[in-house]
Amino acid sequence: MNYRMIANILGWLMIFESLFMAVPLIVSAVYWESTFFVFLGTSLFCLAAGILITRKKPKNTTLYSREGFVIVSLSWIVLSLFGAVPFMLTGAIPSFVDALFESVSGFTTTGATVITDVEVMPRSILMWRSFTHWVGGMGVLVFIMAFLPLSGGQNMHIMKAESPGPSVGKLVPHVKTTAMLLYSIYFVLTFLMFVTLIIGGMDVFEALNTAFATGGTGGMGVRNSSMGEYAPHIQIIVTVFMLLFAINFNSYFFLIHAKFREIFTTEVITFLVIAISSSAIIAFNINGIYNNMGDSVRHSAFTVASIMSTTGFSTEDFNMWPELSRSMIVMLMFVGGCAGSTSGGIKVSRILILFKSMKKELEVLIHPKQVKKINVDGHPIEHEVVRSVNVYMVGYVLVFAVSMVILAFDNMDLITNFTAVASAMNNVGPGLELAGPASNFSVFSEPAKLILIFDMLAGRLELFPILLLFSPTTWKK
Amino acid sequence: MNYRMIANILGWLMIFESLFMAVPLIVSAVYWESTFFVFLGTSLFCLAAGILITRKKPKNTTLYSREGFVIVSLSWIVLSLFGAVPFMLTGAIPSFVDALFESVSGFTTTGATVITDVEVMPRSILMWRSFTHWVGGMGVLVFIMAFLPLSGGQNMHIMKAESPGPSVGKLVPHVKTTAMLLYSIYFVLTFLMFVTLIIGGMDVFEALNTAFATGGTGGMGVRNSSMGEYAPHIQIIVTVFMLLFAINFNSYFFLIHAKFREIFTTEVITFLVIAISSSAIIAFNINGIYNNMGDSVRHSAFTVASIMSTTGFSTEDFNMWPELSRSMIVMLMFVGGCAGSTSGGIKVSRILILFKSMKKELEVLIHPKQVKKINVDGHPIEHEVVRSVNVYMVGYVLVFAVSMVILAFDNMDLITNFTAVASAMNNVGPGLELAGPASNFSVFSEPAKLILIFDMLAGRLELFPILLLFSPTTWKK
Repeated sequence: MNYRMIANILGWLMIFESLFMAVPLIVSAVYWESTFFVFLGTSLFCLAAGILITRKKPKNTTLYSREGFVIVSLSWIVLSLFGAVPFMLTGAIPSFVDALFESVSGFTTTGATVITDVEVMPRSILMWRSFTHWVGGMGVLVFIMAFLPLSGGQNMHIMKAESPGPSVGKLVPHVKTTAMLLYSIYFVLTFLMFVTLIIGGMDVFEALNTAFATGGTGGMGVRNSSMGEYAPHIQIIVTVFMLLFAINFNSYFFLIHAKFREIFTTEVITFLVIAISSSAIIAFNINGIYNNMGDSVRHSAFTVASIMSTTGFSTEDFNMWPELSRSMIVMLMFVGGCAGSTSGGIKVSRILILFKSMKKELEVLIHPKQVKKINVDGHPIEHEVVRSVNVYMVGYVLVFAVSMVILAFDNMDLITNFTAVASAMNNVGPGLELAGPASNFSVFSEPAKLILIFDMLAGRLELFPILLLFSPTTWKK
Repeated sequence: MNYRMIANILGWLMIFESLFMAVPLIVSAVYWESTFFVFLGTSLFCLAAGILITRKKPKNTTLYSREGFVIVSLSWIVLSLFGAVPFMLTGAIPSFVDALFESVSGFTTTGATVITDVEVMPRSILMWRSFTHWVGGMGVLVFIMAFLPLSGGQNMHIMKAESPGPSVGKLVPHVKTTAMLLYSIYFVLTFLMFVTLIIGGMDVFEALNTAFATGGTGGMGVRNSSMGEYAPHIQIIVTVFMLLFAINFNSYFFLIHAKFREIFTTEVITFLVIAISSSAIIAFNINGIYNNMGDSVRHSAFTVASIMSTTGFSTEDFNMWPELSRSMIVMLMFVGGCAGSTSGGIKVSRILILFKSMKKELEVLIHPKQVKKINVDGHPIEHEVVRSVNVYMVGYVLVFAVSMVILAFDNMDLITNFTAVASAMNNVGPGLELAGPASNFSVFSEPAKLILIFDMLAGRLELFPILLLFSPTTWKK
């Protein structure tokens, strides 16, 4: 294990985190908030520590996949630990576990909160929450890698470990250029949303927050009612952008290059079909409550977009909706968005591969000598990818089951526990019952919160890096 | 596809089903019930049809794995269809879907019922329900195969498709002899239980019913309170036998041959550890209700034994227990018993293999060139078995998810739907809420019942035979 190199990259990470804190720092300066000194202090500490650590350059810069996984999981833990400091020091969230929960929930773009009244919070704190979503959405290491002098093969280990989805495609031959391209798309989309919200009449602070929180598909808002108090047209803007951020960013790359055929992949089409049909079903199901098909469709489309993109914003307390809608919402939490987007969940492409590989495996039972690869969009899917998707699914079920067992000791109802774990592992935010949109995660005990922190990280990093961190093999010589 | 041969075996199946009906026929004769003529008629019809079908011997008796799967799934469907006839014709369950549900629930040893008041039912009908459990528990085709002149390799396809557990071991070189041995153990254990219940003071009719229903780990009782009204010592006898029937029957074979080392396999030990620790936790959790540790332990041990063996008997309405106990019960439904027993669920050995293969897959991520087999009890597990366990798990999750989506349209609460599907797929019987022990499955709509029928069959036959029945590849030339 190349410890020097791991430390070096963690040092760079702290330097970048110090820069990220400039955003809430500016906000605290603009609004003359006392949080200014906390953000300044934390930022300077991270900067100093980062510079100190990175000063000594490691001689051996080789990274194997083992180091890739360890770097990714440790980076996210370090990022979350220092991200929690401002919450604690400003007194916004005094408890360490709570502050860590909020920070992990932010960076993993889950959006579950322990804060009961967000409207009394300093604006800089709210901005820090939203900005952690934006930082975490696209993957922070991939961003840092673009600035560090590492060879492409080494970047690839880290990119593979951090990026969502079953297979990481390179849009252009160089990993760095691919990363740059995806970040540009991310930046432009977020900016577009910000401008649209401003035109829609939102004030600059709220528009910036909403754009960051939607961009990362996080969902921490600045109002207690989430998106419930905003005008219908604002809600519609957010609905559209939540869907856009849940679509594979490769599609936008092909859109720019006018390769229209490649935009609508099977995954994107399946995603849209699930989103539209679920919205329709839920709209009919909740029409008894709103007595107005326009409102029903708006709330149902918003909720479906919010859950599938795993953003977690809400316009209505969907916990109070009829059982069919509640069940659909829980199922959609697991589906998530497309691979290569900022959304969480199992991802549509993985589900496609699971169904196709299931079909193939059944065929193999009948014709044992058949060796056929499964196809998506005319491209064969490598056995390695299919295998990893299957292992992911089994690991997902095992982590889910173990989390449920531990959460059960809190003696809360099954739906709260089940949807809290589902919400954490899929990085959605709200669940149902006590974990519902009208409630928050402060009801959970500290051990339960620690489990949910683990689940959020495991979900965001798609299991393997986090599980490997706790595997003895990783640390064996 | 060798249709002649499939028809021939289905013919034999009907002959055997006609013989099985002799049991309720005798009961109806003893108690002078009017159901006598229904059982006689159905039995004679099955006999006549079976003889007619089997009269023409197929020239080509070759069976491939394809035919094996088709025979197994069709046999269980035919068995259930004719098994439903007495329920309908006697007027006990007039609706076709309900009667089929009861029959499938019986043969698959689920034990979920649509009958609200079992105590008003004719005794022959109650006996038929219990006896279907006993027939289904050990696998009916394996039984028939022992009498049919087929070569060993062909038996193996059918035995593999029908027997529970990830790998079918042959205790002795010949499949037929293995089957005979297992049936002898089954018969002796059931008889032992019957005698013990008689000594315990139960009347012959109830003791026979209870022994059959416990032997198959089914759980359809003859009283509305399930096992609630019986004396504590009877409940303890049933607890012990439920556990015994959930242990791999190979252990009893080794017990007879005094190979004491081979009795306590990792699977058996894990099963017992889970059972004892869960009982302890639940006993403490429910002690607030019973205020007497003796009662608490008795109810908790009974419930854990009932759920893990997937029998589904109850002494108390565990739906009313605290959330921790409810959660534990739901988790245990998925665990099930040991492979090679009459219990359902995912099975302890599969869960062991899943955890071990997960650990191995994580190691492969770190050392990609490593090719190591996982070990259980010092024996390497073949890649083929590991692969099939992984595919089973993925298929399980997909079938579960699709069932949940369809059940959601009934607009019942999530816990009812979730536990009903869990209960059906794991062949347990009761779930929670509306599917709880104090309720029954008559609350579900007909489409929901059809889905649950599918789930019960898919669960009992461990997915593949039932899924293959609906796969076009199976039927392609």
